[in-house]
Amino acid sequence: MSAHHLSPPGTVPTSPTTTTRPTSSHDEEFNIALLGAGGVGTIAALVLEKSGRARVTAILRASYGVVRERGWDVESVDHGERRGWRCFRVVQTIEDAVFPAPQPTPNIPTGAPTPMEAARERYDFIVICTKQLPDKYNLAEMITPLVTPGLTSIVLIQNGLFIHKPFIAAFPINVTMSAVSMIGSFTEAPNKIKHIGPDMLQIGPHYHPGVPDAVSLERTKAFVEIYGAGGAKECLFVDDMPKARWAKLLWNGTYNPICALLEVSVGAVQSSGAKEGLVMPIMRELQAVAKADGVALTDEDLEFMANRSPVTSRWRPSMLLDREQGRPMEFEVILGDPVRRGAELRVETPVMGTVYELLKLARWKVENPDEGGEQHIG
Amino acid sequence: MSAHHLSPPGTVPTSPTTTTRPTSSHDEEFNIALLGAGGVGTIAALVLEKSGRARVTAILRASYGVVRERGWDVESVDHGERRGWRCFRVVQTIEDAVFPAPQPTPNIPTGAPTPMEAARERYDFIVICTKQLPDKYNLAEMITPLVTPGLTSIVLIQNGLFIHKPFIAAFPINVTMSAVSMIGSFTEAPNKIKHIGPDMLQIGPHYHPGVPDAVSLERTKAFVEIYGAGGAKECLFVDDMPKARWAKLLWNGTYNPICALLEVSVGAVQSSGAKEGLVMPIMRELQAVAKADGVALTDEDLEFMANRSPVTSRWRPSMLLDREQGRPMEFEVILGDPVRRGAELRVETPVMGTVYELLKLARWKVENPDEGGEQHIG
Repeated sequence: MSAHHLSPPGTVPTSPTTTTRPTSSHDEEFNIALLGAGGVGTIAALVLEKSGRARVTAILRASYGVVRERGWDVESVDHGERRGWRCFRVVQTIEDAVFPAPQPTPNIPTGAPTPMEAARERYDFIVICTKQLPDKYNLAEMITPLVTPGLTSIVLIQNGLFIHKPFIAAFPINVTMSAVSMIGSFTEAPNKIKHIGPDMLQIGPHYHPGVPDAVSLERTKAFVEIYGAGGAKECLFVDDMPKARWAKLLWNGTYNPICALLEVSVGAVQSSGAKEGLVMPIMRELQAVAKADGVALTDEDLEFMANRSPVTSRWRPSMLLDREQGRPMEFEVILGDPVRRGAELRVETPVMGTVYELLKLARWKVENPDEGGEQHIG
Repeated sequence: MSAHHLSPPGTVPTSPTTTTRPTSSHDEEFNIALLGAGGVGTIAALVLEKSGRARVTAILRASYGVVRERGWDVESVDHGERRGWRCFRVVQTIEDAVFPAPQPTPNIPTGAPTPMEAARERYDFIVICTKQLPDKYNLAEMITPLVTPGLTSIVLIQNGLFIHKPFIAAFPINVTMSAVSMIGSFTEAPNKIKHIGPDMLQIGPHYHPGVPDAVSLERTKAFVEIYGAGGAKECLFVDDMPKARWAKLLWNGTYNPICALLEVSVGAVQSSGAKEGLVMPIMRELQAVAKADGVALTDEDLEFMANRSPVTSRWRPSMLLDREQGRPMEFEVILGDPVRRGAELRVETPVMGTVYELLKLARWKVENPDEGGEQHIG
């Protein structure tokens, strides 16, 4: 699913669907809402439920019908083959994900004063695994009905640099944490997930003044514990999440967009000389902006990320897959964020900026499909 | 035809074909060899012959058979419709284009001493209209059999910045001139030319120490006169050819590669915001390198070239057509030359350099077509 397909608040909700699994009352079990059940999100749902400590409500739109009827078919390098797998419940809209209030006693006479609303269930975590497309929709605004101030923690398993900022702004007394994910997993059909590269996450808090650091730390560690208990290949707590996000960007801001622009694999970028001509220059620009932003990326960090994949790799990164399939590419948070931060900090980023501008043109082309025309020579 | 299909020197020549048109002995008629009879070259051949002062030998390879048999079908905005049009002669290789020595008298007895070779016809001009692909072949070396030192002038109707340099190096006592061409003309079929945008040239000499400037000037003006007499829409003599080439590059080094990379029209680049985001920054880099190279491009020159085409233009420049059809793109002389010159002169060209590196990756992809592979998400 893509998050931009979610209904805006105000849409008439359809009935939520509950699976036959009994609701557990174990006091360590958490209510988790999950947005974006594609390759990354469905595996996250599976891992969280496998932990035995989470009840996952997956919010689906495009795949709601088929998943409700048949569950997911998952072929996973970490979890084996699962046919017709279901999480706690699946719903079609964010409104449907809101837990209903307990029903008033049926024998209250008509016209009687409305009884006090009973305490309803709340979400402990909202896990967001959608693409980050801030130019298309505002995720922080969309999830508002699911967030209980001071209680619900936001977990962003997403690409990008400053993705936490709109959530901290929208929910200033809630914990926001994020993960950088190294998973290789994709949707083969609306309810069919192929998970071929092991699920390896680094999760850390985004400390901010509205929440005591100890609380951010405790909630983040709790989530890491659940996720790790569910059988992820690797789930590490990192305390310096900004640095982890910058480091991930060394890969995501270079191979990902270059492969997308030229429609080639990671190995092709390395074999062709573009590693030296494009990847390394962009990495050095990222290093310079990060430094001005207070994050030290070493030359060894750059070398490691530049050579993480072998030259024989046929890996086709997510942005390339998105471009090939005419889907939106999430380059605003991957390249736009560091370019804008560079401009704020007066660090020049001309190579990265050029790739960013070219991707904007690619986006314009997708959004203006009637563009075409006669053939001339100029 | 593409010049890289021409046979290298040493290939066994086939018999040259002569049309039925009688050879004129008018003392103002020039022998002209023409390489690259595609959209630009075929119109040049037509114009030169229409002048009544040129006998054009067109060197064809891919289209030799069909043009020899049926001539060209030309649909031209400047010259109307011509069916089965032929120039003085067409040949298949550079060797075939060499005028044969007069036959020795047949009754010389076998074993007699070889008679002194009689004077043979020479070429006054070699007109080169091929693509400029210095990484693929060496045009200056290839045309050597056609060039008489001190006599034959080289005319380059081609894109690029420093395209004259290898010819001056190879033929140090010959005149080299070049043209920037604004024609809209392309090959619809091997012998079918569609000429839709009027033929407008600026032609000027590349002065160099091996030839007196007055001779360079006189030969260039002679060529301009012939070309103008043949009914080109506009054929102007320009004395400052380096500046004209830099100015043309403002268009050719911006819209041409950007359209090629994203496979969009000129109008799309303008409408999308890429004019401001990419075209203007590259133009300013070109302006800076030109300045260091002794050529003044004004801000008005930049504005004029940035806005030469209307935003509604569906123009698809030559580099885009080449990329779409898997043909080599001539970006080494269009972007490589100014990038390398910038490096020599210590002028930074990061935006242009990034586009150049991306085009190198595009070239690598065409040359390594087996590159592909599995689908992953990263």
